[in-house]
This record gives sequence, structure tokens and C-alpha cells, in this order.
Amino acid sequence: MTDETEPSVGLGQTLGSYEYREWETDPNGTLRVALIGIGWWTAEMVIPAISDLDHCEATVAVSSSTEKARGIVDEVKSVERGITYDEFHEGEAADAYDAVYICTPNAYHLEYAETAADLGKPVFCEKPMEATAERAAAMVDACEEADVPLLVGYRMQTEPLVRHARELIRAGEIGEPVAAIGNNSQTLLDIFDDPDQWRLDPDATGYGTSVMDLGIYPLNTTRFLLEADPVSVQATMASSHDAFDEVPDERSAFTVTFDDGTILTATSSQNAHATTSLRIIGTEGELVFEPAFHMDTDLRIERGEDTVTFESDQVDQMTELFAYFADRVLSEGEIEPDGVHGLVDMEALRAIYEAGETGKTVGIDVEQYL
Amino acid sequence: MTDETEPSVGLGQTLGSYEYREWETDPNGTLRVALIGIGWWTAEMVIPAISDLDHCEATVAVSSSTEKARGIVDEVKSVERGITYDEFHEGEAADAYDAVYICTPNAYHLEYAETAADLGKPVFCEKPMEATAERAAAMVDACEEADVPLLVGYRMQTEPLVRHARELIRAGEIGEPVAAIGNNSQTLLDIFDDPDQWRLDPDATGYGTSVMDLGIYPLNTTRFLLEADPVSVQATMASSHDAFDEVPDERSAFTVTFDDGTILTATSSQNAHATTSLRIIGTEGELVFEPAFHMDTDLRIERGEDTVTFESDQVDQMTELFAYFADRVLSEGEIEPDGVHGLVDMEALRAIYEAGETGKTVGIDVEQYL
Repeated sequence: MTDETEPSVGLGQTLGSYEYREWETDPNGTLRVALIGIGWWTAEMVIPAISDLDHCEATVAVSSSTEKARGIVDEVKSVERGITYDEFHEGEAADAYDAVYICTPNAYHLEYAETAADLGKPVFCEKPMEATAERAAAMVDACEEADVPLLVGYRMQTEPLVRHARELIRAGEIGEPVAAIGNNSQTLLDIFDDPDQWRLDPDATGYGTSVMDLGIYPLNTTRFLLEADPVSVQATMASSHDAFDEVPDERSAFTVTFDDGTILTATSSQNAHATTSLRIIGTEGELVFEPAFHMDTDLRIERGEDTVTFESDQVDQMTELFAYFADRVLSEGEIEPDGVHGLVDMEALRAIYEAGETGKTVGIDVEQYL
Repeated sequence: MTDETEPSVGLGQTLGSYEYREWETDPNGTLRVALIGIGWWTAEMVIPAISDLDHCEATVAVSSSTEKARGIVDEVKSVERGITYDEFHEGEAADAYDAVYICTPNAYHLEYAETAADLGKPVFCEKPMEATAERAAAMVDACEEADVPLLVGYRMQTEPLVRHARELIRAGEIGEPVAAIGNNSQTLLDIFDDPDQWRLDPDATGYGTSVMDLGIYPLNTTRFLLEADPVSVQATMASSHDAFDEVPDERSAFTVTFDDGTILTATSSQNAHATTSLRIIGTEGELVFEPAFHMDTDLRIERGEDTVTFESDQVDQMTELFAYFADRVLSEGEIEPDGVHGLVDMEALRAIYEAGETGKTVGIDVEQYL
């Protein structure tokens, strides 16, 4: 299935034009979403991204204060109600939304997901799912018990070029995958000029900062591309800047062995030049995403002597993800990446931090939570 | 110091044109070299590369048979004598060369270096230095005792763009280095269509194959660029193809922590699409070599929003290395990378293989050999 808004593919014609929203069913209705947590990501990235979707609109803003929440009502036409976190937990305005989007610090995801589940509202939760694997497992339980869908917000999985790359790997275009190499770094203290921010507070962020926030991208994108799960990990971590005193991983390097034998090496830093890439090397070719992870994803494919390049500035990755969430919920279709998928990452993250602390190889065991 | 054959730099003018052979002294005389081991590398890469150097010429070929050695005499004008390995050890034709270039399987490097040292001939030994760190240390001892110079053949250290990159790092162009990410893979069985080749035989290759042969490039180039030494390593390795039965690392991923705190993650494979890159990420920018390691080295520098690209097809990396060797020997100047430098890599390789076998972090201790 293709769409009239299919991105142009240029040189990619030699590898076939790629599909766009092949998951789309164009269901009836509009999914009304409550936005929980109105930080810069929600305000600057999410609200504009979903402002003109056919089947999704933001109707409720949930924040720490009535003023902050009502500010969004004043600013954003579709948003009808602005309520506090406490009011949300009390079921306030529950008639005004059909589903929730959770974008708070990691350690608060669970409580909003539990309330949403109690209210029978489908959940779209930002990644990483929670501060710990145990809390992520509790979220899976809560949503399963209430029978509400749970989507974990891995943008790369609905990025058309990443989906196309997965098709190319499935079709054997790079042979058998052998290795993945990823990097993801940024200068956190330039983005948020505050050493006391939540990403540096273990009570709010969970196991740490750079792997939780950045390393999760090469980890999850590799899982998605390879359709493989992590088996064991190794890691090296260090913090030297004062602001990173309470987290182990101002910088990290980690290795993940997948169940298909592919080995991912990745590096993350919250205090380095902002740069991202992901390379998947196969026996007969390679795929290179660069930049990779932050709303702008280009793809280069090499096979033998041939190189094909795809540039993807045509989609907004948050628009794609909300369009997908609304389509799945409205059509009652299967949703992925779901909570169990996210839980596997949480256990991999837990294992990576244990490996970083002990210097030993650590196995990944998701069954313990299920 | 610049040279009339300085490569053009294009966009690089914004970061200053780079120096070419700033080490050159233009000494008197010509260094006559015996080539030990006439495999494809020596025949196809080295002999053409050094054919028109001012201060270096190949005058003796040393091989397994008189016929093979004399074939080089017939083919190559400067080569006067063709002798066997045994004849070399007996001192045959010693008047016809001033220094040796050793390009045999790893486990044979030591014996030729020892004979060269006994004969008072400077040694240019291919990397990795030997099959084991212990044997590399014996080579250091032999050359020190005989007071002959020992150069280990890391091509990247005399590649002008790599030297330029080191200057840029020294000058703080990327801020403080944080992370390095490297990859180096090839399809060994396509290059040499023989499952019984020496690179797959532990008696000839040493600890293993892909880290010894390929992983050593990101390891050593990072050391050179950062002017830092490795402190500890982690590694994951696997072999699945039948031809790799006797070596642990058909594929590998490894992490090296350096004494300046920078962490290198690298991957190597002898059974994957041929691709190489090396990225050095700093607090304020990054350097990316791609391709990186195999005679063709391009460099991209990013700092903030700016990007500068250098393309380097202008030099032959083996020409540079032999020109450097001859210059150093004839001028009696200090030579680097020397044997102790190479020994540090050998101990790092030993540690990487131990880490791959045990799954534990392994420290690097060079003092044990000295």
C-alpha cells in the first residue's frame, strides 16, 4: 500500500520505492488524547506534530498546576480542559479524552498509566517505560488487567525509512546481519541549563542517564531492524562532571548480543557533541543511518560496490507515531511496540547498568517479571 | 613545514591546510631494504608503493623458495638478490641490504627480527607485531640489545590526514575527547579462497583473527589520535562459520578504556561486508574517518553546526610509511611507532581475547613484559 503523500525516493528507486504508513486503516472517528506532562517536548514537539492529524487530537492538558494546564487550553485550539495531576488521578475530565500520552520524568510514568488503565483509557507512554524494569512490569500488568492497549513511544519504529530498512533486511539485501554499531550523544547541560534536572536524579530517571535517555535508541532500533531480542550485555560507564555525581553514566559504552548472533556496540554521552548514527553490517552489505535518532533520519545502503542514499525530511516522526497510535486504537488493531516489548528494553537497561557496575557480562531475563 | 607535493585541501582551508611529511629531513643516501615474505601485500602493495622513493629501495627478496625469491629479482629492477628464509638466517646477501621489512604470518615475525638484530639491521615489522605479547616483548628485547631501530607498520600513523586530525585534537578543535567508535570488517574467504589460510590458524595468527587483523586498526589509530594508552578492556566474540572453528573471533565487539577516560567501542569481522570507519567524539565536535583504514582515508570534522570534509586519495599509505622508515633510519632520528608502542597493542589484544573468553573486564599490564 502506498499513499499520495509518499516521500520521494530519488536514487532509492533502484531498491524499490518504499512504503509509507502501510499500517494505515483510515478508521472512523477521532481519538481524543490527554497530554500528561507539559514539558518542552510535549509543548514544542508533540502539540504541533499532531495539530492537523485526521484521527487524533489533543483535548486535555494535565500538568503540575491549574495555571500551566490552562495555559495550554488558551494556546491550543483543540485542547478543551486543563487539569492537575491530582485531578487526573481523581478522574476529572475523563469524558473529554479517550486515551493518554505520558511524557513525565521516567519514575512517574507508572502512576499515570495505572490511573489511565483504571479509567479504561489506552496508554501511549514515552520511552524508557519507567525508572526500573520492575515498575515497567507493573505497567504491563495494569494495562493487561484493565485490557487497555499500551504503546511505548519508540519514534524510530514508525519512521518510514526505518520500516523500509527492516524490509530490506528481511529481503536479504545486506545478507545475514553480523554487527550493529550505534552512537548517541548530546550536551544535556546546554539543552537544560540546570544541574538539578530530573535526568540527573536517580529518583526520577531510574538506573542512570545516558543509556536510559540515549543508549536506548541504538538498542531498540537495532532490535526492531533485526527482529531479534537481547541475550546478554557488557558495559563500561563513567561520570566525571560534577552535575553527574549521582548517575553512573555521563558517558557509556555497551555491547549487546542478540538471539540471532548479531552483536551491537553502542556509545552514549550526555556531555558530548550532539551526534547520532546507527550502522547495521551484514555479510553482503550495510545500512547506515546518519543522522539517526532525533527527528531527522537519513539512510545509506551499500551492497558490493553500490551505494543508495535516502534522505528523510518529509515526515515528522511524532506525527507518524500519534497517527499510528490513533489508527491502532480506533481500529482495535494489534499495537506495537507494546508493553512487553518495552519491558525487554527495561530489563536490558537494568542489565547494562549492572554490567557497568560489576564489569561482568550480564544475561537478560525478562521472564522474571512476567 | 610543507612540501611541494602537499595534497590539496579544499574546504579544509577553514581549519588550516595540513602539513605533509613534517617529519621529513631529506637525509643523504638510500636505505636498501630486504623484503621478507612475498605474499600479495608485499608483491602488489609494497613493491609498487616504494618503487620511486628517493631514499628507499627494495634490493633483496626473501621467500620460502629460491624460485619465488628470484621471480621478484626478475620482475623488479631494484631487487638484486632472491634468497630463501634459511639463507636469510645464515646471513646470505647481508651486504646487499641495510634494513628489513617483515611481512610474514604473525608467528614468524620474531625469528626474522632476531636474525636482523643479530646482523645489525634495522627492522620494519608489520602489525600485529607477533602472535603473542610474550613474543612481541622478545622482539623488543632483541632489537634493544642489538641497538637496532624497530618500526611497527601502523600505516595510519603516517597518513597525513590522520596526523592532521591529531593536530586538530591537540588544538582542542573537538574539545575534550569523550568516545571513539570504530568498525573494520571484510570477507576474508572472498579475499583468500582457502579455509586453511594462516589467518585462521592459531599457530600462525596468534590469539585470533578479526581483532588481531582488523580490530587493531581502530585500537591503534585511537591510541595515536588521543595520545593515550589503554587501561582495561571488555569483549564479546563469536565464530559460527566452519572455517573459523579454531579461532574465537570470526566476529567481535570490544571496548577499550584509555588513560585519559575516553572509551573506544569497536567491532571487527572477517566474514562481513567490507566497511571501515572511526569516529572520535569530543565535548565540542567530532572527527569521522570513513572510509578509515585500508589505504583510502577520508576525514570529516564537525564542530557545532559546521562541517569540513577532507578527501585523501593523494598519497599511497605504504609509500608514506617506507619514506618515513628510511628517513628515520638514515637520519638516525627517533622512530615511532616503536616496539614498545606495538607491545602495548599486543598486551591489549591479549587482554581483549581473555575478556572475550571470560566475559570479564581485563586490565592491561605492559610492565610484566619489560
